[in-house]
Amino acid sequence: MSVTVISAIAGYDRRMGRWEPGAQDRLRQAAMELFAERGFEATTVADIAARARVTERTFFRYFADKREVLFSGEDLLQTAFVDAIAQAPEGQPVWTLIHAALDAGAKTLQETRGREQARAREAIISANEALQERELLKLTRLARAVTKAFQARGVAPTQARLAGDVAVAMFSTAFQRWIEPDQTRDLTELLHEVAADVQSITTS
Amino acid sequence: MSVTVISAIAGYDRRMGRWEPGAQDRLRQAAMELFAERGFEATTVADIAARARVTERTFFRYFADKREVLFSGEDLLQTAFVDAIAQAPEGQPVWTLIHAALDAGAKTLQETRGREQARAREAIISANEALQERELLKLTRLARAVTKAFQARGVAPTQARLAGDVAVAMFSTAFQRWIEPDQTRDLTELLHEVAADVQSITTS
Repeated sequence: MSVTVISAIAGYDRRMGRWEPGAQDRLRQAAMELFAERGFEATTVADIAARARVTERTFFRYFADKREVLFSGEDLLQTAFVDAIAQAPEGQPVWTLIHAALDAGAKTLQETRGREQARAREAIISANEALQERELLKLTRLARAVTKAFQARGVAPTQARLAGDVAVAMFSTAFQRWIEPDQTRDLTELLHEVAADVQSITTS
Repeated sequence: MSVTVISAIAGYDRRMGRWEPGAQDRLRQAAMELFAERGFEATTVADIAARARVTERTFFRYFADKREVLFSGEDLLQTAFVDAIAQAPEGQPVWTLIHAALDAGAKTLQETRGREQARAREAIISANEALQERELLKLTRLARAVTKAFQARGVAPTQARLAGDVAVAMFSTAFQRWIEPDQTRDLTELLHEVAADVQSITTS
């Protein structure tokens, strides 16, 4: 298949530099391939743009830098958590709201990224200390967003803070199990198992 | 008082460059003062050494860089947590071991740093994003060290991971309350209150 045909399928008009349907997905796909092949450090934005058959300018229309390719889903996850807590009926206990938040987060993650992409992303992040630090920062921001959502519902500051930390600990523990090499179980199912584990720890 | 007299009190012989009792404490004190006065970024190792009346070479005998002045207590805290878990009698439930770890950590922190120094340190770290990231990394390392200590006692990996995260969430929540401006209560007492909060969340 010629480049022209591929470009036509992708909806890209190189001469016109028009908005291109699917460019963001193709850029993400190209970046993930290159990070896996060459490592994160050795991959440039020019490499990513070339493999996705777009200009560097198009890359920067979607991502601030190459790191953002790995972290751009962050807001979606946070929104899922926060909205689930904010929109739950009044009078529900904190534990029920944590469950609602985790289920919403799991749904978002499974829809937007999927297990294979999550595994590939994890492998890239594990190999780079700066990316690991960025990931930790993201998890801490998520915990504090959950804390704020609980405070907005009138939960006391200390409980709200603990609820945020516990929710994120549960999510990240279940997530790690979900991306294990031979794991086939659903993230939501694993989250419920992790919730039972937390209860057994704190009531032992 | 002349510099010579001060040096004599501090036990320092500039000509001989001998080991100097108290130099590490003086360097830490000087660094904390300068970080508070000028900010972390604007303070150099030369400034710190000058205020502590030692050479830069002496500074580097105790600390790898200026950031290490803020983080050198890290190992002590981790050792306190891990030893408490490793040395507890057999057959104790995870929750009891978490309590033992937190109490040991609180004791170490109160002995080595004290509330005023902890407050000063927190103010410096809050003002600098790179230091905040370093602090997060430290807390994550602490959580994983606790996880390993639990695994060494035969606790299943998922439970051990959650135990590490929950223990660190509890410690850092109690710590934040401990360094609040008007707080006079003991860290151990606050930890026990936080433990009750975690239980009320997970059993609500």
